[in-house]
Amino acid sequence: MRLQDLSNEDIAALRAQLEREFELQKGNRLSLDLTRGKPDADQLDLSNGLEDTIAGNYIASDGTDTRNYGHIRGIPEARALGADIMEVPADRVICWGNSSLSLMYIAVSLLMERGIWGDGRHWSSDPAPRLITPVPGYDRHFVLTERLGLGMVNVGIDEAGPDMEAVRELAASDPGIKGIWCVPKYSNPTGCIYSDEVVAALAELPKQAAAEDFVVLWDNAYAVHDFEFPRKPLANLLALAETAGTADHMLLFASTSKITHASAGLGFVAGSDGTLAALEARLNASSVGPDKVNQLRHARFLNGRVEAHMAGHAALVKPKFELVQQILDAELAALDIASWTRPEGGYFVSLDVRAGLAGRIGELAAEAGLALTPPGATFPYRKDPEDRNLRIAPTFARLDDLKTAMEVLTLCVKIATLQDEMNRR
Amino acid sequence: MRLQDLSNEDIAALRAQLEREFELQKGNRLSLDLTRGKPDADQLDLSNGLEDTIAGNYIASDGTDTRNYGHIRGIPEARALGADIMEVPADRVICWGNSSLSLMYIAVSLLMERGIWGDGRHWSSDPAPRLITPVPGYDRHFVLTERLGLGMVNVGIDEAGPDMEAVRELAASDPGIKGIWCVPKYSNPTGCIYSDEVVAALAELPKQAAAEDFVVLWDNAYAVHDFEFPRKPLANLLALAETAGTADHMLLFASTSKITHASAGLGFVAGSDGTLAALEARLNASSVGPDKVNQLRHARFLNGRVEAHMAGHAALVKPKFELVQQILDAELAALDIASWTRPEGGYFVSLDVRAGLAGRIGELAAEAGLALTPPGATFPYRKDPEDRNLRIAPTFARLDDLKTAMEVLTLCVKIATLQDEMNRR
Repeated sequence: MRLQDLSNEDIAALRAQLEREFELQKGNRLSLDLTRGKPDADQLDLSNGLEDTIAGNYIASDGTDTRNYGHIRGIPEARALGADIMEVPADRVICWGNSSLSLMYIAVSLLMERGIWGDGRHWSSDPAPRLITPVPGYDRHFVLTERLGLGMVNVGIDEAGPDMEAVRELAASDPGIKGIWCVPKYSNPTGCIYSDEVVAALAELPKQAAAEDFVVLWDNAYAVHDFEFPRKPLANLLALAETAGTADHMLLFASTSKITHASAGLGFVAGSDGTLAALEARLNASSVGPDKVNQLRHARFLNGRVEAHMAGHAALVKPKFELVQQILDAELAALDIASWTRPEGGYFVSLDVRAGLAGRIGELAAEAGLALTPPGATFPYRKDPEDRNLRIAPTFARLDDLKTAMEVLTLCVKIATLQDEMNRR
Repeated sequence: MRLQDLSNEDIAALRAQLEREFELQKGNRLSLDLTRGKPDADQLDLSNGLEDTIAGNYIASDGTDTRNYGHIRGIPEARALGADIMEVPADRVICWGNSSLSLMYIAVSLLMERGIWGDGRHWSSDPAPRLITPVPGYDRHFVLTERLGLGMVNVGIDEAGPDMEAVRELAASDPGIKGIWCVPKYSNPTGCIYSDEVVAALAELPKQAAAEDFVVLWDNAYAVHDFEFPRKPLANLLALAETAGTADHMLLFASTSKITHASAGLGFVAGSDGTLAALEARLNASSVGPDKVNQLRHARFLNGRVEAHMAGHAALVKPKFELVQQILDAELAALDIASWTRPEGGYFVSLDVRAGLAGRIGELAAEAGLALTPPGATFPYRKDPEDRNLRIAPTFARLDDLKTAMEVLTLCVKIATLQDEMNRR
């Protein structure tokens, strides 16, 4: 029965029962964690074959000795791997470092200080440059943006992606709006895939923007992280941008972080000839070349079998996401006190509770030994204006721990909501 | 016989003979290269054992699964490796990335934009911040410095290190002088080791500097790259700075780039508790952690046997340096037309020719099929004010190629000098 249809007495009785359950859970001295969007050990084991790929042969396909300096853009087969993941031509890819986040930091710094067009346009020449941040979104984008001195302007996101009407209006009306953060597939944390219409609109956006140095920052972190195969399609931003004449305003990022080993993988950035040259010049000032041995390991391990490899991840991850849905359905659906997403890939489920209660639920969960991503973390400045969004990261926990954690979480949601309801009535 | 003691006729005859030799060499259509300060394949082979170190066990000494995210400062055994190389305590080391140059770029950027003391002091608040650059020096320091918007002021360097009187005078008189670049052991390109007095003076320097945010940038790239063992001592800058109360003004860098595989190694930075915390905060904004699998490979491969490993390099590198000296001695000493350094480690020999001739010698060498590091590259803005310094990088060439290359180089030095002498007389 829906909460709104329960009598005051029913609510008081239910609340008392749930609070007894909560005290019992506290007695169990749990130490559970739903904060970590990282693979578990079984997933990491899928890539241990990386260590066997060199086998005495360090020479890349173009004859490069991967053990020595040089090759800022990466070896051909590693660029081809990035191209496969990002669905762009290999000559539009730089493979560099172990982290796409590092490449994003470098790119946004460069956009602030110097630009990527070789003509003086750069963001810090504006007194208050800002980026559009679809929310809820990825906390590390927000931290990076704030650290680099950019402001943020929120727009909503639904199952088709960002609210493009709001995005266009912002971009068109204000030359201080310099770009937009996107996680286009299995978006963090909602799990949505941007619709073809949204991607097409993003490809056109730089032409409508008031800023002449507007950039779409396309963090395709979960490009191949589907639960079912063949993988779900995503419209091809770079191809659309080339048609639209906006390719110089697109920066695409990806990595193997949740494909192989989370910190020991490869980062990729894709763009136009001109913007890649600008990025290469920047990288060249700080590096004598990326770790090409690791590039070779990855290319030999993954090329031609990315989808088969990701199916191995899906076999481990999908049951966890199904369990999350089962418990959310069983515990919260009837009462109609929360809504949540049902991603078919990626790493997160986004749970929206009654406004004003996310922080309280985080406190209750902590009391019961369950760590949640701090409420607010999915918004810039850690501030969820409605205090209602919670991010669930199911991958790192074992299935039995995940079950307990979800039972505790839903218990906390119910208690907080019942308390709130009683206060209101 | 010294050139100055030769008669005009002798010089003309010698020149004619050398120019015939030069024409013969040109006919050989050589393709030789003395530009590359990088290890050769035999040296790289010394570290192929890295691939065998994981052997199914990815767990670091503190229980960290190196395949997953986190641990910005690095795993304990990798920090211990850096500590061994840099001769500092392990808790003063961050192990991050594959390149000390990247760490230098990050540190200098941070010093420019935000500082490392948490109190607002940062270099870009000065209208014209500059670094002291001992010359000849390392071209990539100069490129990095220029790229980040800092000026450079040259001071001389001799076998004891930078001219500390000039350094002190500059630093004390001008608050825009923000720091000094140092390659303290087997300096690039002179090969000198900073004397105890110079290191002690550098430890005191921040107290004498007019700038309150003066920093010694200590790029100890060749800390363990001796030709004989036990390794040559270098006074301990960080220990001296702690005694002097200047440790917050010291940033020390090292890497395994020329210990294991040049692009696939580890970078290290050391400093005080406070400055490491500032660097960690910066790294944390752009990274979810370094490649700890590679850290584990390196620690398992090198810990406890760095010196034995470097002896393997020395056995390959020392004969090349000896050959360089033999040919310089045989071809140039009697004429007394050049001077050069005799390093006992590192990667370079610095050759000073008659003022005004380095560029001409580079051109002659190119005509004969020999690539030299572009004359001027060892100075900021690629400008050697006396046009006399040439950097010889002997490691990458095979011994027989190195012999030919040095014969061509010394031939070019003699021809250019004889031509110059005839013009003068």
